[in-house]
Amino acid sequence: MGLIEAVPNISEGRRTDVIDALADTLEACVGVTLLDTSSDAAHNRTVFTLLGKPHPIKSALIALFAAAIEQIDLRTHTGEHPRIGAVDVVPLVPLEPREMPNCVALARDLGIVVAKTFDLPVYLYESAARTPDRGKLELIRRGGFEGLTQKMLTRAWHPDFGPEQPHPSAGASAIGARRILIAFNINLDSEDIDVAIQVARAIRESNGGLQAVKAIGVRTSKSNLVQVSINLVDYQRTPLSRVFKAVEYQAHRLGVTIHNSEIIGLPPSDAISTEAIQSLKLTDFTSDDLLESRISRKVSPPVSRDRDHDLL
Amino acid sequence: MGLIEAVPNISEGRRTDVIDALADTLEACVGVTLLDTSSDAAHNRTVFTLLGKPHPIKSALIALFAAAIEQIDLRTHTGEHPRIGAVDVVPLVPLEPREMPNCVALARDLGIVVAKTFDLPVYLYESAARTPDRGKLELIRRGGFEGLTQKMLTRAWHPDFGPEQPHPSAGASAIGARRILIAFNINLDSEDIDVAIQVARAIRESNGGLQAVKAIGVRTSKSNLVQVSINLVDYQRTPLSRVFKAVEYQAHRLGVTIHNSEIIGLPPSDAISTEAIQSLKLTDFTSDDLLESRISRKVSPPVSRDRDHDLL
Repeated sequence: MGLIEAVPNISEGRRTDVIDALADTLEACVGVTLLDTSSDAAHNRTVFTLLGKPHPIKSALIALFAAAIEQIDLRTHTGEHPRIGAVDVVPLVPLEPREMPNCVALARDLGIVVAKTFDLPVYLYESAARTPDRGKLELIRRGGFEGLTQKMLTRAWHPDFGPEQPHPSAGASAIGARRILIAFNINLDSEDIDVAIQVARAIRESNGGLQAVKAIGVRTSKSNLVQVSINLVDYQRTPLSRVFKAVEYQAHRLGVTIHNSEIIGLPPSDAISTEAIQSLKLTDFTSDDLLESRISRKVSPPVSRDRDHDLL
Repeated sequence: MGLIEAVPNISEGRRTDVIDALADTLEACVGVTLLDTSSDAAHNRTVFTLLGKPHPIKSALIALFAAAIEQIDLRTHTGEHPRIGAVDVVPLVPLEPREMPNCVALARDLGIVVAKTFDLPVYLYESAARTPDRGKLELIRRGGFEGLTQKMLTRAWHPDFGPEQPHPSAGASAIGARRILIAFNINLDSEDIDVAIQVARAIRESNGGLQAVKAIGVRTSKSNLVQVSINLVDYQRTPLSRVFKAVEYQAHRLGVTIHNSEIIGLPPSDAISTEAIQSLKLTDFTSDDLLESRISRKVSPPVSRDRDHDLL
């Protein structure tokens, strides 16, 4: 089995001691590499990017659940980003398409263990979903932690694993398998949250906007900036530049300019190199021709010691 | 000691059996990874990109010299690219600045061994040069293989190591240490080689053009395309987009358009991501934030077995 990425999103983006402790927990796990930690205070959320083979990834994620559930209490958590859990969402991402079935299997395995160990409701989503309505993360998360108790009373929202009511402090978790997604936030020079909300509505696929684009409008930690927070679920279908231009156009209509943009986590290089390939007319060039891509592909990473060690 | 790149340029770009045999020679060496092989028939030249620690790199390059000198005879070699040797030039490139002294030391070590083993004149160039006039590769190579016997009669062009006349079939070699360089070729829609020559003259630093740009005009394997063949020796000082625009402007003045461009070897991702960072207003983003860059930095490559094995 090949390498996969796990990108757990944790509902803590402010207390640096807690974030550091969670990162340390992941760093201490054998057979995985913590590639990146991205925290956002306004979202009050941290995204970790882990690399490894499925078995070590599973162990590391269980350790992360244990530490996060101990440290995070959603009853006192506030933030701009929608969330239902302390470990809000755990996407498992194949680095090569043939690894998708392994990611789906891992999502289910992990869901069973986590539900039982922590008495936590778990929803399987996207490619790991077992019914169509579980496919979309935004439906699972609609209503947030605050609405979870009520929502779970209906049969349609009984979890895939675990109890039929939220964990008192840790809520619930969505665990899934999906292709690489780019979390792309564009900040607008405006104090008006409605501007960001309108732009988000205009560009997202669900309202007839750009394919493969999910978007919401949120506040930022700066009063003079609002944000269009975007998930680009297929950057090959809709390149980053098209998303940027669509936001620019919609914002201009409202008399607002783009201040800057940011990417949360680690985008694959081909999402970034597309622009240079076009503007420099670089034929026969792909992101595999970048020095770092080639090193990463040709020099096989020794991350797994192929040892199964259950941390619990 | 860290990893370095060696980018030997071989005077053979047409006979695929010879190129494959040379690549096999490099692939068979312990402790190095052959990252890339780029051949060009019009240039009649192949560029290999090797990764490893200095000791294994040295052994692999000695093996390459042996195989190339056996297979290549410059007396019957023709091609668009200037050259003085079967193994024309061997740049050693630190992947981190602190490795430059190791690359300089390796250039000298390798030069001594190669000169003695193959009875081959060796010039040390760029950062490994011992006198200022040896710094510039284009001066060492001026006159080509054909002019070498005459040139070497003057004391100024006695080699750093080896005999004071060319090897009969393999000429001489330039071995040096330098920073990362981007070999960037831009093809123009023209049959007129003078167009390429004029554009090259207009953009190169030595004629008052762009900083860090070396350029010549050459023919291609297609009669309707001529090429501006560029060495960009500092892509942080002069980005690729500026070189492209300068060529476009100069070509337009002569009524000619750019057909396409190509990069020989493997450019570092930050040379490519610059464009996206600007056009997407991506603040706080660097090429280190690309997934592949992070994997290549965080997951240390097991290329060297730290064993000294002299192949000769």
